[in-house]
Amino acid sequence: MAPRPADDGLQGLIERFRAHEVRGLARAISLVERRDPAVRQLFAALGPPGSNPAVVGLTGSPGTGKSTLADALVKHHRAHDRKVAVIAVDPNSPYTGGAVFGDRIRMQRHAMDEGVYIRSMGARGHLGGLSIASREAVRLLAAYGFDQVILETVGVGQSELEVAGIADTTLVVLAPGAGDGVQMIKAGIMEIADVFVVNKADMPGYERTVQEIRSMQNMGPKLAWKPPIVPTVASRGEGVEELEAAVLRHREYLDSSGEGARRRLRRLEEEAADLVAEWSRTEARRRLREDARLRKKLENEQSPYGAAETILKLK
Amino acid sequence: MAPRPADDGLQGLIERFRAHEVRGLARAISLVERRDPAVRQLFAALGPPGSNPAVVGLTGSPGTGKSTLADALVKHHRAHDRKVAVIAVDPNSPYTGGAVFGDRIRMQRHAMDEGVYIRSMGARGHLGGLSIASREAVRLLAAYGFDQVILETVGVGQSELEVAGIADTTLVVLAPGAGDGVQMIKAGIMEIADVFVVNKADMPGYERTVQEIRSMQNMGPKLAWKPPIVPTVASRGEGVEELEAAVLRHREYLDSSGEGARRRLRRLEEEAADLVAEWSRTEARRRLREDARLRKKLENEQSPYGAAETILKLK
Repeated sequence: MAPRPADDGLQGLIERFRAHEVRGLARAISLVERRDPAVRQLFAALGPPGSNPAVVGLTGSPGTGKSTLADALVKHHRAHDRKVAVIAVDPNSPYTGGAVFGDRIRMQRHAMDEGVYIRSMGARGHLGGLSIASREAVRLLAAYGFDQVILETVGVGQSELEVAGIADTTLVVLAPGAGDGVQMIKAGIMEIADVFVVNKADMPGYERTVQEIRSMQNMGPKLAWKPPIVPTVASRGEGVEELEAAVLRHREYLDSSGEGARRRLRRLEEEAADLVAEWSRTEARRRLREDARLRKKLENEQSPYGAAETILKLK
Repeated sequence: MAPRPADDGLQGLIERFRAHEVRGLARAISLVERRDPAVRQLFAALGPPGSNPAVVGLTGSPGTGKSTLADALVKHHRAHDRKVAVIAVDPNSPYTGGAVFGDRIRMQRHAMDEGVYIRSMGARGHLGGLSIASREAVRLLAAYGFDQVILETVGVGQSELEVAGIADTTLVVLAPGAGDGVQMIKAGIMEIADVFVVNKADMPGYERTVQEIRSMQNMGPKLAWKPPIVPTVASRGEGVEELEAAVLRHREYLDSSGEGARRRLRRLEEEAADLVAEWSRTEARRRLREDARLRKKLENEQSPYGAAETILKLK
């Protein structure tokens, strides 16, 4: 399994990346998405990140307007001349090897703008890989020099918790209407919010949604950071300024309280533990293929636990 | 992190399981679902499986009638006095700790029947865990003595590929109508079919769906086992007999060709490699928490790759 990316090899990719060709970035993200072994060399070659982007996670039920809000945030950052990347994390789509149809439509709005990068990331093979891949994509965007990264979760699901584990600030988006009651109950989602966004704030039911969040907050424990509730109408860009101000306040809280440093350390540790797991799996698979002594030993093994123990014992 | 399941401990759980109390089974599956460390002891205590159930995977787009088909299969097996379990694998739902609402509705139909067991499994924490957990649930159902296990995928997504990796025979369910054209293109799904089911075969468009599958098959490489196409109307139980006959023919093919033994070996190896990865991650996390020398070393580490290498080097 020689670590060879497409076309002109890893070296060409690194040169393109350094020359700020977007194709170099796209191919680098494809490498991390498909868990190519060359990723390790890639990161070693790129060195420490060129920027320290603000990483904002965007999560919430379908129909709350997450994508529209992501677009409004992009517009806002561009007006302030910040380079911004959007990664749509979709554990339900297999590895795409690049932009999917939806991305292309969204990209068209920013087609001539080199300060914007949008793409999807799916899972390939092992589901846990998406979490590592998303973190590494953020690292690549930092190395490339983006100021802002928006991690948008697609669909409902486990990816919400994973994204919250990567982002500095997690926005939980709600919208007035039928779905929000159920949504509020969804385990684990309320707890990951650093900021609540009530989008479609011009629709009936807005007050009730805010009220539901408030009662939820009052029921829970007293927190050092109480997630603010920000109304937006993303389709008209309303409230985006205030939302960005809330995100900045949260960043200041992270810095001043030490919580930011704690989160960074926790992220580094989680990522390192995931890499250790990934390497162990790859190495175990390689030995199951190539190690004749191990294969002989396992011939009559029925239990995967026994087999795993034998793999570790024979090392 | 003491491995302590709820209530009367692991020993009580094992006794209940052995006494064929369904609560013992349910709690054992909850243990594997939440990746409790006690799972290892549980399997050691239960010993080799009591039965060798036929494991059938059921996959396909929403709206094709997978659940109805699963119910029809349950009915069919019960008419032949076979004990049957249905596991609905849903990577989008977090760990439930037991039956969800939908299960309860479905269970009511078989409420007084001890030969039927239905439950959902979701992912908790690390997404890759669901794959290990599903395989272990099948192992538990075998130990409990089920003759038939149906693994149903919920929603569209990566779980389809994971389920195909666990099942002996994978049924890909299609239905005439708007969605099927797109569905056919979906990467990787056509390849995992051992049997195609065209459900809702009494609806207009049936012939076209069959035709689409056939042309797809003619375009691909010649296979040792050509997946048959079986029409069903699951809501009326029509075609279920023929479907089960096709599954049996596929099982015979697996046995006579040696493909079955190859798949079993591949499954054992994959499961062992996943366990090695899971154990490595758990051990890395433990050391990141407890190993003072390691923590000291990592203080100024910025890169997760460097951190992972340090974890492995300091072992």
